[in-house]
Amino acid sequence: MSKQVYQFNEGQASMRDLLGGKGANLAEMTRLGLPVPPGFTITTEACIEYLENGKTISTELKKEIERHLVLLEDQEGKKFGSSEELLLISVRSGSKYSMPGMMDTILNLGLNDESVKVLAKMTNNEVFAYDCYRRLIQMFGNVVYGIDGQQFESLLDFYKSKYRVKQDSDLTSDQLKDIVEDFKRVYLENKRQPFPQDPKEQLLQAVEAVFSSWNNERAFVYRNLHNIDHFIGTAVNIQAMVFGNSGNESGTGVVFSRHPATGEKELFGEYLINAQGEDVVAGIRTPQSIHQLKKDLPECYDELNRLVNLLETHYLDMQDIEFTIDNKKLYLLQTRNGKRTAKSAVKIAVDMVSERLITKEEAIMMIRPESIVSLLYPVFDEKALAEATLISDKGLPASPGSATGKVYFDADSAKAAAASGEKVVLIRQETSPEDIGGMVVSEAIVTSRGGMTSHAAVVARGMGTCCVAGCSELEVNELVKQVTFPGGVIKEGDVVSVDGSVGALYVGAIAQNVAEQDENLEMILKWSRELARLEVRMNAETVNDIQTGLDFHASGIGLIRTEHMFFAPERLKEMRRFILADTFDERKMALKTILMYQIQDFKQIFATIGEKPGVIRLLDPPLHEFVPSNEKEFAKIAQDLNVPVEKIASKVNELHEINPMLGHRGCRLAVTYPELYIMQAEAIIKSIIALKKEKGIIVEPEIMIPLVGTTKELTLLKEKIVNYVDQLLNEEQCQVVYTIGTMIEIPRACFIADQIAESAEFLSFGTNDLTQLTFGYSRDDAGKFIHQYLEEGILMDDPFQTIDLEGVGELVQTAVVRARKTRPAIKIGVCGELGGDPRSIDFFNRIGLDYVSCSPFRLPIAYIAAARSQIEFQEKVDVNK
Amino acid sequence: MSKQVYQFNEGQASMRDLLGGKGANLAEMTRLGLPVPPGFTITTEACIEYLENGKTISTELKKEIERHLVLLEDQEGKKFGSSEELLLISVRSGSKYSMPGMMDTILNLGLNDESVKVLAKMTNNEVFAYDCYRRLIQMFGNVVYGIDGQQFESLLDFYKSKYRVKQDSDLTSDQLKDIVEDFKRVYLENKRQPFPQDPKEQLLQAVEAVFSSWNNERAFVYRNLHNIDHFIGTAVNIQAMVFGNSGNESGTGVVFSRHPATGEKELFGEYLINAQGEDVVAGIRTPQSIHQLKKDLPECYDELNRLVNLLETHYLDMQDIEFTIDNKKLYLLQTRNGKRTAKSAVKIAVDMVSERLITKEEAIMMIRPESIVSLLYPVFDEKALAEATLISDKGLPASPGSATGKVYFDADSAKAAAASGEKVVLIRQETSPEDIGGMVVSEAIVTSRGGMTSHAAVVARGMGTCCVAGCSELEVNELVKQVTFPGGVIKEGDVVSVDGSVGALYVGAIAQNVAEQDENLEMILKWSRELARLEVRMNAETVNDIQTGLDFHASGIGLIRTEHMFFAPERLKEMRRFILADTFDERKMALKTILMYQIQDFKQIFATIGEKPGVIRLLDPPLHEFVPSNEKEFAKIAQDLNVPVEKIASKVNELHEINPMLGHRGCRLAVTYPELYIMQAEAIIKSIIALKKEKGIIVEPEIMIPLVGTTKELTLLKEKIVNYVDQLLNEEQCQVVYTIGTMIEIPRACFIADQIAESAEFLSFGTNDLTQLTFGYSRDDAGKFIHQYLEEGILMDDPFQTIDLEGVGELVQTAVVRARKTRPAIKIGVCGELGGDPRSIDFFNRIGLDYVSCSPFRLPIAYIAAARSQIEFQEKVDVNK
Repeated sequence: MSKQVYQFNEGQASMRDLLGGKGANLAEMTRLGLPVPPGFTITTEACIEYLENGKTISTELKKEIERHLVLLEDQEGKKFGSSEELLLISVRSGSKYSMPGMMDTILNLGLNDESVKVLAKMTNNEVFAYDCYRRLIQMFGNVVYGIDGQQFESLLDFYKSKYRVKQDSDLTSDQLKDIVEDFKRVYLENKRQPFPQDPKEQLLQAVEAVFSSWNNERAFVYRNLHNIDHFIGTAVNIQAMVFGNSGNESGTGVVFSRHPATGEKELFGEYLINAQGEDVVAGIRTPQSIHQLKKDLPECYDELNRLVNLLETHYLDMQDIEFTIDNKKLYLLQTRNGKRTAKSAVKIAVDMVSERLITKEEAIMMIRPESIVSLLYPVFDEKALAEATLISDKGLPASPGSATGKVYFDADSAKAAAASGEKVVLIRQETSPEDIGGMVVSEAIVTSRGGMTSHAAVVARGMGTCCVAGCSELEVNELVKQVTFPGGVIKEGDVVSVDGSVGALYVGAIAQNVAEQDENLEMILKWSRELARLEVRMNAETVNDIQTGLDFHASGIGLIRTEHMFFAPERLKEMRRFILADTFDERKMALKTILMYQIQDFKQIFATIGEKPGVIRLLDPPLHEFVPSNEKEFAKIAQDLNVPVEKIASKVNELHEINPMLGHRGCRLAVTYPELYIMQAEAIIKSIIALKKEKGIIVEPEIMIPLVGTTKELTLLKEKIVNYVDQLLNEEQCQVVYTIGTMIEIPRACFIADQIAESAEFLSFGTNDLTQLTFGYSRDDAGKFIHQYLEEGILMDDPFQTIDLEGVGELVQTAVVRARKTRPAIKIGVCGELGGDPRSIDFFNRIGLDYVSCSPFRLPIAYIAAARSQIEFQEKVDVNK
Repeated sequence: MSKQVYQFNEGQASMRDLLGGKGANLAEMTRLGLPVPPGFTITTEACIEYLENGKTISTELKKEIERHLVLLEDQEGKKFGSSEELLLISVRSGSKYSMPGMMDTILNLGLNDESVKVLAKMTNNEVFAYDCYRRLIQMFGNVVYGIDGQQFESLLDFYKSKYRVKQDSDLTSDQLKDIVEDFKRVYLENKRQPFPQDPKEQLLQAVEAVFSSWNNERAFVYRNLHNIDHFIGTAVNIQAMVFGNSGNESGTGVVFSRHPATGEKELFGEYLINAQGEDVVAGIRTPQSIHQLKKDLPECYDELNRLVNLLETHYLDMQDIEFTIDNKKLYLLQTRNGKRTAKSAVKIAVDMVSERLITKEEAIMMIRPESIVSLLYPVFDEKALAEATLISDKGLPASPGSATGKVYFDADSAKAAAASGEKVVLIRQETSPEDIGGMVVSEAIVTSRGGMTSHAAVVARGMGTCCVAGCSELEVNELVKQVTFPGGVIKEGDVVSVDGSVGALYVGAIAQNVAEQDENLEMILKWSRELARLEVRMNAETVNDIQTGLDFHASGIGLIRTEHMFFAPERLKEMRRFILADTFDERKMALKTILMYQIQDFKQIFATIGEKPGVIRLLDPPLHEFVPSNEKEFAKIAQDLNVPVEKIASKVNELHEINPMLGHRGCRLAVTYPELYIMQAEAIIKSIIALKKEKGIIVEPEIMIPLVGTTKELTLLKEKIVNYVDQLLNEEQCQVVYTIGTMIEIPRACFIADQIAESAEFLSFGTNDLTQLTFGYSRDDAGKFIHQYLEEGILMDDPFQTIDLEGVGELVQTAVVRARKTRPAIKIGVCGELGGDPRSIDFFNRIGLDYVSCSPFRLPIAYIAAARSQIEFQEKVDVNK
């Protein structure tokens, strides 16, 4: 059997796995010679063994605990359970990761009907002794056996009102003795056994309770949610008690080395005089600011200040420290890296670099990329939010930020309302390209269907508009213009508030805190850009979005979608003429008009992005997206295009697809109608020729053919485009350097990436489609089950939000390895939604991609993620050297 | 430079790659000492070099040809192009595979205005000499330069009618001299150059023409269609002429060593007296039966008979031999394995085993698995078919066989018509489970949409009903009950004929030849079953189909679909009750009724299959397949189930999916509603308990969970089923051995097959879905482009018909290797449509699967394919030993 119990002076901070976070830090502080009450830690391995051995503590472990208890008694010169020089102890859980839901703390173990009298005598303080005892019974009953704490609390309240006292500490010892007797009765009634009088039994039961709490349901769910291994177990910390409740020169509190909300370098925290730890949590007495301690116990304050600074310098991070003062003597009970707001986090990180405590790399490693969202988008005021009425929080956080506005159910109403100055929230079952006009003018977009990569979600993120998608609790009826939700109904014009960062909707307006420019964040971002190896591009096609991305320092455009270039009314008309055409010549005529428009589109895009690289994806959607499915609209089109209505009906019927995602689109459409891609290539090249002449801007376009699954789709279309373009350049007597590459989004393409790379001059992973096909999930329909899959731990993450390493990841890596075998220097990027996800970015960085591309507003997050990944990656490389 | 020219006596049969089929066999016959006119072969490598060197014959090759020409002259004691002892030669192409569309044959090379006179003098036969010369000009002009043969033919006809002669051979030498002059004029007019007088120029031009014809369009398309490498090139055979047209003791013909249609062991063939090869093809003179030769030239006949038998025994296969008799001397010009009908093929193979010429293994290797379709299904009479009017042949050959019947457009009309004794052809845009009743009574099923694995195709193959799917030339209007096709309209009640083996429809009735039991086929199948390592199971769920499969010796059922167990009206009602239920209890109530029915269903299945294994796939389709999409039906359901119409409308709307293929179905549905799978498991187990009690049959069911993409979907559902079933067995005091496995049909599942195999007790590849997802093709929609993809060579095969090795194959192999790493003995099969495809079966055999499963009517083909694969596989293993 390996060693299962460690005295605090045997461990150190690096032993988190074995001793848990709390135990390792207690050991580290002991090692540093700080005033920590002595004790020992039972290892996480012992916990796992206990759970695997049918929940029995082995004889060996029992002996070890007893041996360490004797050591502790010797250290303290006291005896556990003895009737003289009484040693009391605390038991606390502590796993590697902080984890709510597990058993937490029991204080004052070792007290019983006899030793409470000894304690009273020893301390000459009966009130204190019985206060400790009633706390023990209450905590033990509640924490070890789950007896509802309210039963004890209400008894206490009853006594306090009976004797008309306000504070627990105002109770007399006789009153406390009565309370102890009543508490023991409550314990007996609930547990059907008397409160254990044997201190060692108390200890072992407490240890078992900590062990067992590892597998309680809340802890289990939490671990699933946070992707924590179920087999790492928790440690148990057993420590000599010191007493914050032993009089008015005692107390207990929590202190941060810097301000957790603002990041200012100052002690921040609170404490209670004459109290034990749980009093702070219970909130019965209002704790005092830590600065009051300077007045109350100035030596203690100075000592605390010294130790806090010492710990921060030692751990090189802002510390969150628990302390107790027992008769003017200061003890430290815990230290850990403190939780903080995003604003505080960036300030602390930047300040600590200025103070030469940490490096830029270490500063970046202190910032969770996702956390900075709140610095980029407006967030609801916390207080206002707490009072708001929830409509649903079951939506997907599709695009961050918050907004308030009046509800509209269709694009036209939304546009009209916005035009008249209203703030609009667009709610629909799902959105489609036809809704764009309404989406652009909305403060927030909400859908009842569709996932994180649905049309609504992608478009909203692109625009930086807050969006909640797939909120299945909403039943949206667009015809009668109302939404039914479990608690009521929302009608057109009602005001709602939408939180796209968490996926929630509220009734009425909620006050907001607006994001301000944060210079510390700017600094972190600058360092991140310097340290990242990956380039970060944006997915953008409008001048506005491109400008946003440039402001966030995008290194280029990773995805220029071209669908929208077909949808404006005058173009849609021509596109429909194309679709209804019977001959190649008719189709070419229709495209000629669209060509003229698209030359202008591309000129705008290239003029904005300048000489930075841009990947243009040629037309991707199937043709039926360009015709109405509603028969009522057929007549108008028939009139517009001068064709019989029957022909339109017949064409719409012919174009109908059962699974459009798997249908006649992307390069497949271009194989049937190469003239489509040739027209687009012509528009690109002509716009570039014009820009060169007009403004001297040299653009080198990267033309991307989507949905390639066979080598020949690519070679065939590439050849047609190259032939056409080269002839065009020849005629125009012009030179344009262009490359033709492909999107890798079909699983099969990953396997044949070596062949594809013979023809493709660059590759870009379309992770949305690749994920859809690898899992067989439709991003439009997966909302029906993906919530449940995440809740039940079938999926650890939504694969549309974070790359699935086992399936999609293996495909991506296979493709990269094979493509580079053929063409070692081929440029490879990612333009799917995962390009903006920190964990996915880490993967993409490690497998050696050249760039990721994401929505303009995700750029800061992506840069931090790319930098962190590179820092970790290099550390690993350095270690291996 | 490697050797580019081989004399016939330098080669042998095994050198097909280098010398082409014809050249290798000429060499082999020479080697055997048979009477082959001497000659030499220019290699396929020389052809490729020519094509890659910008179509120039290298100086080296020219020299080589000249050197071999000299050798040939020496052998023959004649001179090419000389004015005395004239040597004439033939030039013939010959690639590794017989390939229509390439340049074929030029005879009589070496003749010109001078040497024709020499020939006349040498042979003392001016008619013969000028006949040869006019043939040369005609063939050279036509074959080398593409001058329309009709120009020459009509001139010849003109002369024949002018001089009132019937046969070419009745023309006089003077008449022939005029014809030669006219032919030269035609040549000059077309080619704008005179017919080349230099024999060596004739030869080199002919060689270049053969080389170039490798890349002509017909050859290119043919190679694409037949999956032949474009870079293997063709050889050129140059051979001394012998003359079948040198008089009435000369002739030319073709003979088979056995009858190519019946397989009878007898010489079969035909010949023409006093003719050259092309006369047989031209069809101007009617050739005589080979038996006539016995009377005309008995020594030649006997010699021919002897040589034919010698060649068959040498090649160990039925031979197709070209011969020429030149003044009573017999020459062999070609031998090759003869093409034959399926009926003949099986007879020849079985006979040759009886004759101890070949082994059973070799016999099986003589049978192309697909070819036996015509022995299993009725086929249209060839003559009747030639006269029939085609409606379209652009459909997919979805289920083989042929049928004639009256057209109906919906299941109800089809049923009514069939009930009144009519033969019915059901034509629909596509079929759905609701159409089953109509499909069952139809002689043939035709759809205008959907692919080889669409509902119609799968169901039809299962029933052995002939089916043409995805015939996009048909515009089916089910409302007005008519089909528009390019040539007209078909209305309800019109008679059509359907050929499901090729995918064609015809107007009116066509006479059929019915398939009869063929004892030779039975023998081949028996041997195949003995030699196959793979087990072959059937996909079947009706008693009829299972019986068919058992008659074809299925080793079990590889796929029992259970969808149909929910669709009969009284069950559908309960299923809809289930769907509309608000509580778990309501759902359970609805399932209780379905359970009772399904116990009976499974009893029937298991009673039929007996103790052979059977894999039951739990419910796979999404819930919306159980509710009508047509609002008109809502009211009836509302009344039936006593719920408001709005509730139904709302539910139907909620269940709607944009891409149902990628939606909430299979195990995903069971994660949401585990009670569905538990009910099915209960039905399976209860039926088995009952069968055991009633009939003593011991069934060990294999329960398959579909659409698994994550390990936990499987473990979760398996645990629930096992818990329930084990409790049930406990209550019933019964033992049933059952296993739970999964379908591998999601790409991701292939990557995690190692994890899946920890829980799955067997695996079965669902190649339909796996192919859909690997390519991103919807089998329902791919019809829109897959034709074109095949035509343009983007796809070599329809991946739904033959496994795609590069994508799907790699996934399958990955899954097998990983699964076996975890569980080496895990049983792995295939139950998708590819399980019945010979080339796919070969792959599945080679990677070590345990079984394939296919439609009952595919079993014979699958057994032959499995045996052939195993024979080839073992040969390879033996070679490697």
